[in-house]
Amino acid sequence: MQQLKQRILREGKVLPGNIIKVDGFLNHRVDTALMREIAKEFARRFDTTGITAVLTVEASGIPLGTVTAEELGVPLVFAKKAKSDNIEGGLLRSDIYSYTYKKTVTLLVSGQWLGPQDKVLIVDDFLANGEALRGLVDIVNQAGAEMIGMGVAVEKGFQGGGEKLRAAGVNLVSLAIIESADENGITFREEEA
Amino acid sequence: MQQLKQRILREGKVLPGNIIKVDGFLNHRVDTALMREIAKEFARRFDTTGITAVLTVEASGIPLGTVTAEELGVPLVFAKKAKSDNIEGGLLRSDIYSYTYKKTVTLLVSGQWLGPQDKVLIVDDFLANGEALRGLVDIVNQAGAEMIGMGVAVEKGFQGGGEKLRAAGVNLVSLAIIESADENGITFREEEA
Repeated sequence: MQQLKQRILREGKVLPGNIIKVDGFLNHRVDTALMREIAKEFARRFDTTGITAVLTVEASGIPLGTVTAEELGVPLVFAKKAKSDNIEGGLLRSDIYSYTYKKTVTLLVSGQWLGPQDKVLIVDDFLANGEALRGLVDIVNQAGAEMIGMGVAVEKGFQGGGEKLRAAGVNLVSLAIIESADENGITFREEEA
Repeated sequence: MQQLKQRILREGKVLPGNIIKVDGFLNHRVDTALMREIAKEFARRFDTTGITAVLTVEASGIPLGTVTAEELGVPLVFAKKAKSDNIEGGLLRSDIYSYTYKKTVTLLVSGQWLGPQDKVLIVDDFLANGEALRGLVDIVNQAGAEMIGMGVAVEKGFQGGGEKLRAAGVNLVSLAIIESADENGITFREEEA
């Protein structure tokens, strides 16, 4: 998606350790008009016939998840990342390793809001090691729901998470796949141009 | 806002300890069409001339914050709740007490995304003790930004957070103020009907 790639090139910053900061428009300050364009692109790229929900994970997946859900006319469900008093019985849960926080984090979704009748598009802002998204797939499977596919704004192609998900048969669409990011700048994977 | 109150009456659940669960449409599964109606109501109720950003706090404030920001044509900024590797220098921070997690939590916003040039509407899904919202006001003040007001979907009127904010001069608009919630059901405050 050219608009997103241009935005990454213009405003993205590469920090030591291959960290790519896009927090001026994607995951701290959020350009909601760009989220809408990304959501429309997901609507074009997936067959959303019969879809019943968009699933994402707190916190930075929520802006894009919200706009995508509205675009598709279905509810958003977001997985929570810790035990909260406000979630009760029938929990779907998956343990993932958070590279950001360097510890295991449990993703939780109430079984009330995801079940065998559901047809789900998973959405996230960022895909690096793919742990969070693996956890969401696990939760969709536990619910007995069907996964239409997975839409990601920015994939760090050099960290392998996307390859693992594709190898597992996930219909993954990443709108900007970063092949390398260092002091020489950011390069995108060709085939997704 | 009648649509929201009816939804609370129809789908809200009261749990022991005056916990009001509205997680089927507000803060776990999210009805994005309802978020849009709430955002339109905020647009009507506040003078948003010159507004530059909507500010909320992760995680459950983000869906409503996102839709409100899009409705007003400005970026969303969401405060983060813990130290993350992905936030750097110039941090605005405020310590709040989380009644949900029963501990002190630090709200963080990068000073890059909020400054003296900003005119901000604070938005959140829920107002109970008002700690998170007090923290957001603190952050707006630290940034030297101007606060237009504060828009909340559901206020638990019997927990005092809203009164404290109003007493401090905050232009607070809550679209459904719950006066009592117990085994007899949910009652709303009259003047906000």
